[in-house]
Amino acid sequence: MSKTSRIAVGILGASGYTGAELVRLLARHPDVDLRVLTADRQAGKPMAEVFPHLAMLALPLLTKIDDVDWTNSGLDIVFCALPHGTTQEVVARILTASAGAPRRLRIIDLSADFRLHDVATYAQWYGHEHRAPDLQKEAVYGLTEFMREEIRRARLVACPGCYPTTSLLPLVPLLRARQIDPDDIIIDAKSGVSGAGREAKQGSLYAEVGEGIHAYGVASHRHGPEIEQELSRAAGGAVVVNFTPHLMPMNRGILASIYVRLINGATADDLRATLTRAYADEPFVQVVPAGVSPATRHVRGSNHCLIGVFPDRVKGRAIVLSTLDNLVKGASGQAIQNMNLMCQLPEARSLEQLPLFP
Amino acid sequence: MSKTSRIAVGILGASGYTGAELVRLLARHPDVDLRVLTADRQAGKPMAEVFPHLAMLALPLLTKIDDVDWTNSGLDIVFCALPHGTTQEVVARILTASAGAPRRLRIIDLSADFRLHDVATYAQWYGHEHRAPDLQKEAVYGLTEFMREEIRRARLVACPGCYPTTSLLPLVPLLRARQIDPDDIIIDAKSGVSGAGREAKQGSLYAEVGEGIHAYGVASHRHGPEIEQELSRAAGGAVVVNFTPHLMPMNRGILASIYVRLINGATADDLRATLTRAYADEPFVQVVPAGVSPATRHVRGSNHCLIGVFPDRVKGRAIVLSTLDNLVKGASGQAIQNMNLMCQLPEARSLEQLPLFP
Amino acid sequence: MSKTSRIAVGILGASGYTGAELVRLLARHPDVDLRVLTADRQAGKPMAEVFPHLAMLALPLLTKIDDVDWTNSGLDIVFCALPHGTTQEVVARILTASAGAPRRLRIIDLSADFRLHDVATYAQWYGHEHRAPDLQKEAVYGLTEFMREEIRRARLVACPGCYPTTSLLPLVPLLRARQIDPDDIIIDAKSGVSGAGREAKQGSLYAEVGEGIHAYGVASHRHGPEIEQELSRAAGGAVVVNFTPHLMPMNRGILASIYVRLINGATADDLRATLTRAYADEPFVQVVPAGVSPATRHVRGSNHCLIGVFPDRVKGRAIVLSTLDNLVKGASGQAIQNMNLMCQLPEARSLEQLPLFP
Amino acid sequence: MSKTSRIAVGILGASGYTGAELVRLLARHPDVDLRVLTADRQAGKPMAEVFPHLAMLALPLLTKIDDVDWTNSGLDIVFCALPHGTTQEVVARILTASAGAPRRLRIIDLSADFRLHDVATYAQWYGHEHRAPDLQKEAVYGLTEFMREEIRRARLVACPGCYPTTSLLPLVPLLRARQIDPDDIIIDAKSGVSGAGREAKQGSLYAEVGEGIHAYGVASHRHGPEIEQELSRAAGGAVVVNFTPHLMPMNRGILASIYVRLINGATADDLRATLTRAYADEPFVQVVPAGVSPATRHVRGSNHCLIGVFPDRVKGRAIVLSTLDNLVKGASGQAIQNMNLMCQLPEARSLEQLPLFP
Repeated sequence: MSKTSRIAVGILGASGYTGAELVRLLARHPDVDLRVLTADRQAGKPMAEVFPHLAMLALPLLTKIDDVDWTNSGLDIVFCALPHGTTQEVVARILTASAGAPRRLRIIDLSADFRLHDVATYAQWYGHEHRAPDLQKEAVYGLTEFMREEIRRARLVACPGCYPTTSLLPLVPLLRARQIDPDDIIIDAKSGVSGAGREAKQGSLYAEVGEGIHAYGVASHRHGPEIEQELSRAAGGAVVVNFTPHLMPMNRGILASIYVRLINGATADDLRATLTRAYADEPFVQVVPAGVSPATRHVRGSNHCLIGVFPDRVKGRAIVLSTLDNLVKGASGQAIQNMNLMCQLPEARSLEQLPLFP
Repeated sequence: MSKTSRIAVGILGASGYTGAELVRLLARHPDVDLRVLTADRQAGKPMAEVFPHLAMLALPLLTKIDDVDWTNSGLDIVFCALPHGTTQEVVARILTASAGAPRRLRIIDLSADFRLHDVATYAQWYGHEHRAPDLQKEAVYGLTEFMREEIRRARLVACPGCYPTTSLLPLVPLLRARQIDPDDIIIDAKSGVSGAGREAKQGSLYAEVGEGIHAYGVASHRHGPEIEQELSRAAGGAVVVNFTPHLMPMNRGILASIYVRLINGATADDLRATLTRAYADEPFVQVVPAGVSPATRHVRGSNHCLIGVFPDRVKGRAIVLSTLDNLVKGASGQAIQNMNLMCQLPEARSLEQLPLFP
Repeated sequence: MSKTSRIAVGILGASGYTGAELVRLLARHPDVDLRVLTADRQAGKPMAEVFPHLAMLALPLLTKIDDVDWTNSGLDIVFCALPHGTTQEVVARILTASAGAPRRLRIIDLSADFRLHDVATYAQWYGHEHRAPDLQKEAVYGLTEFMREEIRRARLVACPGCYPTTSLLPLVPLLRARQIDPDDIIIDAKSGVSGAGREAKQGSLYAEVGEGIHAYGVASHRHGPEIEQELSRAAGGAVVVNFTPHLMPMNRGILASIYVRLINGATADDLRATLTRAYADEPFVQVVPAGVSPATRHVRGSNHCLIGVFPDRVKGRAIVLSTLDNLVKGASGQAIQNMNLMCQLPEARSLEQLPLFP
Repeated sequence: MSKTSRIAVGILGASGYTGAELVRLLARHPDVDLRVLTADRQAGKPMAEVFPHLAMLALPLLTKIDDVDWTNSGLDIVFCALPHGTTQEVVARILTASAGAPRRLRIIDLSADFRLHDVATYAQWYGHEHRAPDLQKEAVYGLTEFMREEIRRARLVACPGCYPTTSLLPLVPLLRARQIDPDDIIIDAKSGVSGAGREAKQGSLYAEVGEGIHAYGVASHRHGPEIEQELSRAAGGAVVVNFTPHLMPMNRGILASIYVRLINGATADDLRATLTRAYADEPFVQVVPAGVSPATRHVRGSNHCLIGVFPDRVKGRAIVLSTLDNLVKGASGQAIQNMNLMCQLPEARSLEQLPLFP
């Protein structure tokens, strides 16, 4: 494909980990031309200075969002990897006439700003009224495996959070199949530190995180209502779950250990069968064999999600284990998967990279 | 106290991590005289060669168990830090006439061999009939906080496993208070690697454990029935729990995230009040304030157990977090606490060390 | 390229880390057909069981070396990732008539068996006479950047060790340019644990390696004479160096901090200029800008080597920092680079993967 | 000792890692009464909130420096764990009449402000004129093992940096004995992350430090001139050294790998003999046996420094390895050792804690 016929891509917020991960994966995408990289506080610098591991790439200089020439940049797709809160205003500006962006421009957002559809829920969990409620309604929740048709047509895709992706991939098919009790779901989730972003925060320091673990955001993490929104959709009724995240001394990876109650006579084997069927043709979701425990290190750096199912010793219960790389399938990889869909490309393009172990 | 009036102590299996930890803690115990250290495969070596961090101590050479002069060593207390399975035969030999050990000799066992009281349960989980069933019956389960009287008089104390200690300390008072449903307990436990011992196993290699996490022994870990035995005692009826251990990329520390259903109108605050009351006078169990999440790094190297309670967003449920250092309160520290009890010494002696952070 | 016209490849010793890394990289190689994977102790198992991170690949079952049908397998290239010592006998058997391997078969060895050309040096450092001295003479030292012509024609390539690759890439051009004193070279090297292999050894346990560092093999590591052999070749005279390896609590990566004395009026800038010139056209060796400190995390998972040069505060001295991923450029990646050369393919094929950070 | 006759101690800057480490160690000191803890940004909070691992201690609330009642607090000793730069002004204020502190008050400073005696060197490396040059001259460099008499009498002790302590303990006796060339010393130093403090800095984030290593401050680290000042004193002439620090993915520990040239016919064994003699009666400095490589994990949490000596394969050279815990012997432990000296107490009091391994 000639460079001019490639998809012109911009990344807003390229100096964070998900931004760098988008660059890592898109740089090898044969159909993509990376034209714009923004990072307000690092504007003017080469990406190589901010992320030396990408120094071997020829990339545009980092620029400020306000300096992007929306009219002439010819962008087809913009990935938005900005902090929660500021995203909605930026996206609103770009998608309305004001910024002068081409009408064909479509946005794939990695922030939390457009994930929740209910304005009241949003206001409750994020502490302010949504500043672009129309776009909030328009946005498509970008859980690729369940929203392909909507994503293909969307102008604004809200990519799911890393914890929700890890939790929803196993739970949605099981709820749809009415094999688990929607009122008795416990998600004990464990994440690497990169999920907290690159901002300098005391809680993310090596000395605060290394050689130890702890739960955080107990019963108060914002991914809780996001998970519930999608589980409610799958169950056809309001679902409230226990969601307890823990911070792990590792860079990448999420593992959700999910404890469920079986209904309608289902067994752990039935659950595994349901999931195997649901993901039989999926390139990036695999159900591991009985007895195998999926590990974060088996998906590191890849776009894969592994799911395992175990019978519990407690009668009528099962254990579902789900793991993925929070920066890939949990963020940038899934975003690119969505881009491929939106641009009528093979869904797995540039995402074929195998996991890195050890 | 003069050296001759000190408690004469031997450690069988001093070349493992719990053995070394016993030495670390006992070396500063003013009432203890460390006389015998065994390690069959390292016999003849100084401890400094096997554990260079203990090189600053004057210690007896490592010897073989068979070379211990039971008759003349004058031992009062023997800590047994041998592998599961071999322990029962060694203990039986020592405690019966055959070995010639003094009758006053008492044993504090850190293995799993004497923890299960039911011979059938033992046989089922350990794959063979118990080889010292009389001692199995005699052994006192050494969960210090709940068994003080029995421990004081015991000839053979079976110290609890690290996972059971972490789980039982919060759960026993709650079951006794009938504030949680004994039929709906989920224990998602996370442990550092030292719990797997010092034996060279592929699964414990740095490259297999670092930078990643996974569940193991799902619904099949031997600490499950041990936890259930003691919870059943507390609940006054058979309890079966979900117990799912996970391996963490850290050396020390256990965190149990326990998900419970409230009964009899109890709230999370009631649970915290019950635990605060139960442990008000305990030197080593602390209930942290509401909103605080106990972290393994806050107990590292110490004999403390921290417990936190959170209300769940799911109505009628609560989250209990419990953490300790698997090698101290989860093994060698608790063993020494029991020794202090057995020898009428202040229970906290030589265990005052504060946690090491970071 | 149709499957039949692809290069037929076998990997001996596929159950170790370098074996798995060969599979990871070759699986995406468009010109390679992976036909044979051996692992004597795991024979009969699917690779997915031994390395679950590769479960998404369709691969031949693991087999024993003795069960390889050399006559009919049609192999073009065999990668040998066997332990030191056993390799030489296996290679000798394959390359002589006895095994019945096709005459076109060529071997790329990742062990240390054929790296040293001098039989006496080999015997001194490896404790026995070489068992295939003719092959030892024939073998080409596979430091790609300096041996392209020889590698293209070679029947047996001995890939350099990870430490030697890291050390030689910066030092060879500097010695050739006569800018550093060959008698005053100090190599303080630091490696991740995967370099020690997947064998269960106490010294590689997480609890022995995590949260700490130490030097090992001080003045006695076998990579010392290997480095000296090649430095002597570059300097045109016998070179002896200080080489001090250290074990780091990380999975992958090597950093060599090299302390050199400047001669012939050279400055640190001159050294950087020499290296920049030497590697101007190299796809995998980059000299970083002045003031930048190359980090192992900037090459993780990639085939890149980064080199930095700093002036020392001590007059007449300079500091050279060199880093690469020990399993890629330090082992399997370089081996594939050599295969590409031997098979007249573009040298970087299947090695384009960018570093994974964080 | 009754509480009133104890040494009244204050810690300025108690919310950093060295502050917390002072509390950890002093809390078990039988002769110390911890009266004042300051932390300007955390004033009003209990220490338990800032450092939950110390929650089991009864401690004064954190206060602002400006709120300390110097006149009535009755402090005997003040530990200063403030950032470089601000320290000198605070100390000057306290030690002059202005603050109203008792005349007996003595200060043990852990910052770099009073370590360099030369005003020009200070200005060059710290970018500004010293603001208390008289105190700079008065301050005693608190390298305990070599400055006991001066420390006993000092009003202001400037505790050495962690890298200097690690480097000087092996090098000073060797230079004094004229067994190594003062013009050919290379110090390749490796430190855990806690040395960078608790301030939120991007470079100290887990994701920037974990699973990787790099050199930093190459030829420009401020501990270079500090090391040289003391080595020059030992050598009796100006010494310039190579000092290259590296950041390690671990919390605690420093290892200095020091490469020296032997003079006056000395051998590595002579070096070991010199060091063994020099430290024969020292409680906290040990020379390990020939062939043993000292590891950071063998001193973790303790006040010990371990030193090993190896002959180099390069003729006329030797390798000296020195390790300690940067927060203990490299900071707070040495500071307390100095306090014990200043207060005529046994030097090792409250520092007997054994290393924590694993």
